[in-house]
Amino acid sequence: MKDISGLFGLQYPIVQGGMIWCSGWELAAAVSNAGGLGTIGSGSMYPDVLRDQIRKCKAATDRPFAVNLPLIYPQVADHIQIILEEKVPVVITSAGNPKLYAETFKSAGCKLIHVVSSSKFAIKAQEAGCDAVVAEGFEAGGHNGREETTTLCLIPQVVDAVTIPVIAAGGIADGRSMLAAFALGAQGVQMGSRFVACIESSAHEAFKQAVIAAKEGDTHLTLKEITPVRLLNNPFADQVRLAYHNGATNDELKALLGRGRAKKGMFEGDMIDGELEIGQVSARLDNIYSAKQIIDQTMVEFKTAFQKMSL
Amino acid sequence: MKDISGLFGLQYPIVQGGMIWCSGWELAAAVSNAGGLGTIGSGSMYPDVLRDQIRKCKAATDRPFAVNLPLIYPQVADHIQIILEEKVPVVITSAGNPKLYAETFKSAGCKLIHVVSSSKFAIKAQEAGCDAVVAEGFEAGGHNGREETTTLCLIPQVVDAVTIPVIAAGGIADGRSMLAAFALGAQGVQMGSRFVACIESSAHEAFKQAVIAAKEGDTHLTLKEITPVRLLNNPFADQVRLAYHNGATNDELKALLGRGRAKKGMFEGDMIDGELEIGQVSARLDNIYSAKQIIDQTMVEFKTAFQKMSL
Repeated sequence: MKDISGLFGLQYPIVQGGMIWCSGWELAAAVSNAGGLGTIGSGSMYPDVLRDQIRKCKAATDRPFAVNLPLIYPQVADHIQIILEEKVPVVITSAGNPKLYAETFKSAGCKLIHVVSSSKFAIKAQEAGCDAVVAEGFEAGGHNGREETTTLCLIPQVVDAVTIPVIAAGGIADGRSMLAAFALGAQGVQMGSRFVACIESSAHEAFKQAVIAAKEGDTHLTLKEITPVRLLNNPFADQVRLAYHNGATNDELKALLGRGRAKKGMFEGDMIDGELEIGQVSARLDNIYSAKQIIDQTMVEFKTAFQKMSL
Repeated sequence: MKDISGLFGLQYPIVQGGMIWCSGWELAAAVSNAGGLGTIGSGSMYPDVLRDQIRKCKAATDRPFAVNLPLIYPQVADHIQIILEEKVPVVITSAGNPKLYAETFKSAGCKLIHVVSSSKFAIKAQEAGCDAVVAEGFEAGGHNGREETTTLCLIPQVVDAVTIPVIAAGGIADGRSMLAAFALGAQGVQMGSRFVACIESSAHEAFKQAVIAAKEGDTHLTLKEITPVRLLNNPFADQVRLAYHNGATNDELKALLGRGRAKKGMFEGDMIDGELEIGQVSARLDNIYSAKQIIDQTMVEFKTAFQKMSL
């Protein structure tokens, strides 16, 4: 199987998405120990917290792991310094231009992956020197592209546009969806929502329960004028809908969103006023498993689905 | 390969979507003659036109073909009468409840497929006695579901919810996307946009050229308050956007849409004021081929992609 395992030193070509408030060192280490690429989501961390999380992750696993770095983060320079000092093996950048930092990471021996939502951005990431791209479709949770291209349409376009490996994200939560991604030419998958509803995730238990209770149509992409984000329906999401219905301005929407809503929802478990970022595929999740169970089950189903498909 | 070929008497498990103004008898017969299931889109036809189209299709092919029947069509009773009198082998119903007509079709020996956008509707279609469902995702062109579930998320859910065969639609235009649909458990695929940009399609040449010129982000789902529909960006689509921006009421949106815009755009080639229904996958189409070329190329690529994927 042609995949990203060799490139990043993994047992299986499965990346755990870096998710604010859900993916600390416990989840990252558990995923890496299970053979995938665990990722610390630095977007919700102050620099000193990030350093502590990286050190704990290194203590908990000898395998490669990653840090997800949103490039719009105000303290990005501090984060980069820490990532380099702590010799993090892989960085997954998102929401910005990787070209500004690619040389810094590469010369330090740090592998670099960038998250994209179009083939145009994938080409830019390749030109910047990235080792791989995560191509993430409309169905993905959290922040999302403006063009709304779904994973099924996006992956073949990105695969045809670049020569570096493509890791498919958005709508992937099990072996069948992983196999579909490989059919499209992906060489790895990234799963986010599946690892929110995971024992080692730092998501609040109430959020995990809401994720596995979600049904079809229970998420929607919103706040497109600010930064498109896919949210689980809840009273806060209803408030956003009402604001749109009443013709809210961008400033009014930003004021409604306020600060700290994502922490309130996903980390503190406020299912009423919190912002709950999750993918469409949450409708397919019914249980909370350990990271090892998720990866083992995914690989078994991946192989079974392939055998069943024999043409 | 477990697929729908045996059920509907096809050489290949490929259904051509029934598309208003684009899929007359020439396209349907060409697809059926090439080994797929050709479909006459009756939604844009008066009863006498439909009868004429069916007769011409029967004269042009000995293979099974289908008529697509939107159940909200005002003259649906007349259409059903004609379909039964002309002994059409397969009917593909959409936009309504197939239960009202299932017994009529089944007792006349007519196979019945219903188009759904959720597993809830798939279960209802199965209970109504349908032989199969087309499960169509958010990326599909034309009229679309309200829940915005993408094909990658939708297919496994529908496959798990029903025992009848599932035909995947939305985002499928070649062998790789077909293979992805089979990986998810589909037993056939329906392609719409791919057959708009087809020599035998009755779409206006200007529309075909616009379809193959489309790039990522050039379609969007709109008019959700009336009937969600995916359109190609053009000045008319810009007018709709502006109306939304100005807080248009549903009545104002309906007035803007008016009557005959789909015919004006897709059949008469008015790229300014016409309504242009097409899927996201148009961004992946670069050429106009014959129906036979499309089907042959799809099957070759389907098998090649499967071999390349060997785990």
